[in-house]
Amino acid sequence: MKIYVFGVRGDEEAPLKKWASENPDVSIDYTTDILTSETADNAKGFDGVCSVQREPYSREALKKLHDFGISKLSVRNVGTDGFDYKDLNDFSFTLTNVPVYSPNAIAEHASFLVGRLLRRVPEFDKKFENGNFKWAPTIGTEISGKTVGVIGTGHIGSVFARIMQFGYGAKVIAYDIDPNPALENLGIYVDSLDELLEQADIISLHTPLEPQDYHMIDADAISKMKQGSYIINCARGGLVDSQALIDGLDSGKIAGAGLDVLDNENGIFQKDFGSIDAVPNEKFKNLAKRDNVIITPHTAFYTKKAVHNMVYEAMDTQKALLSGEITKNIVDTKEFAKTV
Amino acid sequence: MKIYVFGVRGDEEAPLKKWASENPDVSIDYTTDILTSETADNAKGFDGVCSVQREPYSREALKKLHDFGISKLSVRNVGTDGFDYKDLNDFSFTLTNVPVYSPNAIAEHASFLVGRLLRRVPEFDKKFENGNFKWAPTIGTEISGKTVGVIGTGHIGSVFARIMQFGYGAKVIAYDIDPNPALENLGIYVDSLDELLEQADIISLHTPLEPQDYHMIDADAISKMKQGSYIINCARGGLVDSQALIDGLDSGKIAGAGLDVLDNENGIFQKDFGSIDAVPNEKFKNLAKRDNVIITPHTAFYTKKAVHNMVYEAMDTQKALLSGEITKNIVDTKEFAKTV
Ligand SMILES: NC(=O)c1ccc[n+]([C@@H]2O[C@H](COP(=O)([O-])OP(=O)(O)OC[C@H]3O[C@@H](n4cnc5c(N)ncnc54)[C@H](O)[C@@H]3O)[C@@H](O)[C@H]2O)c1
Ligand SMILES: NC(=O)c1ccc[n+]([C@@H]2O[C@H](COP(=O)([O-])OP(=O)(O)OC[C@H]3O[C@@H](n4cnc5c(N)ncnc54)[C@H](O)[C@@H]3O)[C@@H](O)[C@H]2O)c1
Repeated sequence: MKIYVFGVRGDEEAPLKKWASENPDVSIDYTTDILTSETADNAKGFDGVCSVQREPYSREALKKLHDFGISKLSVRNVGTDGFDYKDLNDFSFTLTNVPVYSPNAIAEHASFLVGRLLRRVPEFDKKFENGNFKWAPTIGTEISGKTVGVIGTGHIGSVFARIMQFGYGAKVIAYDIDPNPALENLGIYVDSLDELLEQADIISLHTPLEPQDYHMIDADAISKMKQGSYIINCARGGLVDSQALIDGLDSGKIAGAGLDVLDNENGIFQKDFGSIDAVPNEKFKNLAKRDNVIITPHTAFYTKKAVHNMVYEAMDTQKALLSGEITKNIVDTKEFAKTV
Repeated sequence: MKIYVFGVRGDEEAPLKKWASENPDVSIDYTTDILTSETADNAKGFDGVCSVQREPYSREALKKLHDFGISKLSVRNVGTDGFDYKDLNDFSFTLTNVPVYSPNAIAEHASFLVGRLLRRVPEFDKKFENGNFKWAPTIGTEISGKTVGVIGTGHIGSVFARIMQFGYGAKVIAYDIDPNPALENLGIYVDSLDELLEQADIISLHTPLEPQDYHMIDADAISKMKQGSYIINCARGGLVDSQALIDGLDSGKIAGAGLDVLDNENGIFQKDFGSIDAVPNEKFKNLAKRDNVIITPHTAFYTKKAVHNMVYEAMDTQKALLSGEITKNIVDTKEFAKTV
């Protein structure tokens, strides 16, 4: 069995080689290049393909793989919006993804964003860089005793809730359209989003972005929050209306925000502009320059464990597919593409 | 009953006024000035004094208070090394301190230092400031699954252990010369410091600094640690030999350090040098300039809740003293001074 691997980043090489050594019955080859109509030629003679990339997958590349007799494709991430599902269906591809790779990575990151905001780390960092080692007046706040509102309590939200409640001693309240049975006995669920918005000191988003959830946190939602609330978004950028957030920060209604995703992140994250001023997006610059806003460029997932799991899960799935075993990560290409 | 309050910082004013409003039977007055032989005059006609300051308390100031008939002094912090106990005894002072004000403040701060180190925040911050929003190669590590070694499991260490184990899902091991009964059923204690040093991925210090504990973490201790360990010190600077730490960082034995205290912090913290280069201490500059070292200038305690508790506890104690009630925070001035 031969699997060709595209778009291998530096941090993926070690887990990929480890996987190969543990699966001597599979022979693999790989490239750091992503899958394009040119690089597709590399896969000639292979049985299946594993890939990851942020750029769209071209019809030509998929056609070439098809012509080489390849019909199984495993991506090492969640998102499948780089595909035109029509192409996949025309060439009879079976596509798999990695829906869950390390909820802890994202939940931990979200908790650190809370800590950095509450302890006013950006302000302390500036003082420190200027050789000013006085604490006052940069006084912080503790998580302990605060009410933390968790919106969405699936894989990631449930870990975040655990960190806040059992670790930091926060009062956790949660809202989910489909409450998680594993958490129901904690008595943390409130009945509506509004109730959560009204009660929480710190609000953290952990839902997918379904069309009806676009700008879930808009001016109206913010108006319902407590004065001086904090918002954390490590889920999907489209959940928060950046302009409403800016207005909330201006008015003081929002005390701070920790954002791993932004409704306008495409074209910004994963690029190098040389300076923040060079970023061609006013809302981004407005947010990025505030001391009470911490933006991380979609890095919440980026841990060694997560990358290891993405590589292993995708390769295991591809191997199972090629062996004719049923796998659990098959993407329904008759549906809309998933985006992450 | 009249209490005079010295050295009131801006962040102490609100809790002090709140305390006064809740204790209408006590009349208070206060100054932002610290207690000196000049400002001592303010306290004339008052029954007792509450103060906090980093500078030594002068014999002249204490003599003046004594001459005004004042013999009860409550400090709003732990440390009493600003006093010459002989002065206190000569003038028959009863001194009280606030030994515990908010263990969460320090434990939470220590946990955030862990997060900022493991997620390589200083490196990401630099990239961000330069408009570089690529994640690779700045890959992070999760706390979940790591072995966290807690040295000292009293008020603060026990909260830190809880955050790591029940929040983040770390494997916690602990060492204490006098294990905490409240934690013993968790089965986290190892029998020796060496055992902890050998097993932990992340080591966090939460012991006092007794003379025999000076440089507990020295070159010898570091040599016993795992390759790539992290060290967190939010306890007392003297516990870690900065030169040994620098050597450990140079060799790669130590992957990173989070330091809220330093063995040479006196003369540095609480001052404003205008730049890091202007700090007259080579070891400090060496540590401060590393991306894998995060120094916070003794700010772990600095939260609204901690300051509130320091003010309330000291004022409550002073009031109780003046009412002739026995209080729990009386400092034994026949012993050596406590330093924090
Ligand atoms: N920042 C990153 O690096 C990163 C990485 C991975 C995933 N994510 C994002 O994190 C989010 C959560 O991922 P997950 O794996 O925990 O998903 P999940 O499917 O396990 O859980 C999502 C939960 O949200 C609930 N939900 C859906 N719509 C809701 C609504 N309108 N209101 C309240 N609850 C709602 C669901 O019932 C479910 O319990 C997703 O948006 C995902 O894209 C971000
Ligand atoms: N960074 C800050 O802002 C800040 C603020 C407050 C306190 N502190 C410091 O935090 C530390 C812990 O404070 P606490 O209130 O938890 O103290 P504590 O007295 O409640 O607990 C200390 C624990 O350390 C144990 N211990 C003593 N010597 C030991 C040794 N050699 N090896 C192992 N264990 C030992 C004791 O048995 C005790 O359980 C102290 O050093 C204190 O000065 C720092």
